[in-house]
Amino acid sequence: MIRRRRRTRRIYVGSVPIGDGAPVAVQSMTKVHPRHIAITLRQIEEAAKAGCEIMRVAVPDDEAVQCLQEIRERSPLPLVADLHFNPRLALMVVEKGIEAIRVNPGTIRSRKRLREIFEAAKEKGVTVRVGINAGSLPRPYEERFGRTPEAMVACALDAVELAEEVGHRELKVSLKASDVPRTVEAYRLFSRRSDYPLHLGVTEAGPPFSGGIKSAVGLGILLAEGIGDTIRVSLTGDPVLEVRAAYHILRALGLRERGVDIISCPTCGRCEVDLEPMVLELERRLAHIDRPLTVAVMGCVVNGPGEAKEADVGIAGGKSSGVLFIKGRVVEKIPPEKWIERLVEEVERLVAEPPLSGNGGCTGPAEEP
Amino acid sequence: MIRRRRRTRRIYVGSVPIGDGAPVAVQSMTKVHPRHIAITLRQIEEAAKAGCEIMRVAVPDDEAVQCLQEIRERSPLPLVADLHFNPRLALMVVEKGIEAIRVNPGTIRSRKRLREIFEAAKEKGVTVRVGINAGSLPRPYEERFGRTPEAMVACALDAVELAEEVGHRELKVSLKASDVPRTVEAYRLFSRRSDYPLHLGVTEAGPPFSGGIKSAVGLGILLAEGIGDTIRVSLTGDPVLEVRAAYHILRALGLRERGVDIISCPTCGRCEVDLEPMVLELERRLAHIDRPLTVAVMGCVVNGPGEAKEADVGIAGGKSSGVLFIKGRVVEKIPPEKWIERLVEEVERLVAEPPLSGNGGCTGPAEEP
Repeated sequence: MIRRRRRTRRIYVGSVPIGDGAPVAVQSMTKVHPRHIAITLRQIEEAAKAGCEIMRVAVPDDEAVQCLQEIRERSPLPLVADLHFNPRLALMVVEKGIEAIRVNPGTIRSRKRLREIFEAAKEKGVTVRVGINAGSLPRPYEERFGRTPEAMVACALDAVELAEEVGHRELKVSLKASDVPRTVEAYRLFSRRSDYPLHLGVTEAGPPFSGGIKSAVGLGILLAEGIGDTIRVSLTGDPVLEVRAAYHILRALGLRERGVDIISCPTCGRCEVDLEPMVLELERRLAHIDRPLTVAVMGCVVNGPGEAKEADVGIAGGKSSGVLFIKGRVVEKIPPEKWIERLVEEVERLVAEPPLSGNGGCTGPAEEP
Repeated sequence: MIRRRRRTRRIYVGSVPIGDGAPVAVQSMTKVHPRHIAITLRQIEEAAKAGCEIMRVAVPDDEAVQCLQEIRERSPLPLVADLHFNPRLALMVVEKGIEAIRVNPGTIRSRKRLREIFEAAKEKGVTVRVGINAGSLPRPYEERFGRTPEAMVACALDAVELAEEVGHRELKVSLKASDVPRTVEAYRLFSRRSDYPLHLGVTEAGPPFSGGIKSAVGLGILLAEGIGDTIRVSLTGDPVLEVRAAYHILRALGLRERGVDIISCPTCGRCEVDLEPMVLELERRLAHIDRPLTVAVMGCVVNGPGEAKEADVGIAGGKSSGVLFIKGRVVEKIPPEKWIERLVEEVERLVAEPPLSGNGGCTGPAEEP
């Protein structure tokens, strides 16, 4: 269904490959000042457990630079230091060594300073994300083009050119707006004019439910067009939610799989059981599963048997009991009060078996038929 | 950003226009047996208040047919009776008069019965949704094509042809699978072969967070391609959540607007306030607002001033206070503990003013530049 993935250069953030057919890498960001070293590390560890592969950390001051050292030594994930306003801090972070930095030409402002940062990053082998935001464009671009995709792309291309002038090509680019149309247009436009890998995101997407949906629309459209090499879903909420949202988007498109996909009916007048609390409990109890699996919980016989049969484990509800399917095979009838217990049990049994394929749930570049 | 909307015929469900440039209509479904008349009506009323325009009600038995009469008399929205398995019930519902019915050729099974239903619907002026589901395909189609988009489309086209044979053309079509790739392919394929309006949905999408994201990816891709005339987001949860999710998707694409769009930063080490609970409180307290408005709550000065300036009402946080923007104008500095109170107050003040445009938040067909 999705178009052939756009050909890009390959770069790395630590050992994580980005672009050129690598699986779309999942990122998140810590939510506290790095002076809270233990909280920062806990957020990184929890995000990593949920499948996060790269973590970004804001570095707003000298104290953050110091703390970043210790965080980096103990982090299970490669880190991207997020730098704004202060070129001196960027140079300090690069000097101390880090996997990657993110710079925003709109907040660094000085072309001379930006060049110095690229030079230092080149010398130290530090990957750079050129991170453009519609909300913080450099004044000349905003004056010339307005807060438009064209302004974002012009700003990004100029920054990339500056990096290339000093020989630095370990770059990725993001072009985020807080609305989907500008975000999609900016990435489409840039991807026609450059082959650097792209970090996708809709910025300031908002609280989890609406923000997850907004991000899914924007990132979904782009990924389905083959655009995007790494993604971050920005939500006002826990990094783990951002990571889960990212995998839900990638799985919906068949790009990556991780964890349990719950196929549950919306319930209606045909449903004889109180399905909603059961599904929420199931979601909670299966949240720790990494292995990609499909679990169907269906309230009636309209689509129930069809969906339950296609799932790894499924229940198709009937009048006063449900039929349990495992890998398409009818196993037995069970009463509703035992559905959740049994589904969890069967999923855990499946997970205990060795997986059939060893690719860690990554699918390669997909092509249209 | 989105392609010119696909040209379709125009049909109506009650007074709600569908297709041919009408705003994408938002639907949901009641979640209890119609014998629970009061609960059914409450669900319809709450969904209507959230912006729902058409409500579907399952009709699984004779009792449901009887109750539907009373529900219909008191419903603020036009209703679609959802019928499976029993052609006799379908004929009874049509006979008593209803805005629309949904039939699934995979559960009605008999071609003769399906024709009788179309005939009766034609005679009574009842709109019909031909609702195909990958999980309940008629056996011949499944045997010939598997559970594929091709099978879904072939089944839909045959049913439409049958309706046309008896002269019924007040039809819309849905082609739902529980996964995005099949859903998207089925709608794309059908839309190239028929000009009937399309009811979009990803079926059995699951619990609200993951189901909202999965639906947003599938419906977002299709709507951005100009495909889709009415949508329903199937979630295991309250109909109001389905309606909110639908508007979040439509707004993300600039197709329709309703209610408050919260632009809030994901927070990071730069954020000096505990933004997450504030944003959740704001979301809750502004949930009743219908008027399309943008409210930005930003934790720091990176994108804060830019986003707050673009929003109808916005706060850009700083060290120990935030700058309040109204319609792009700086108003004053306010301390974090007063942000929410003040934002709610300003939104309510804006809503009390008469709106600038009188189109009810509907935008016409969008075109690519």
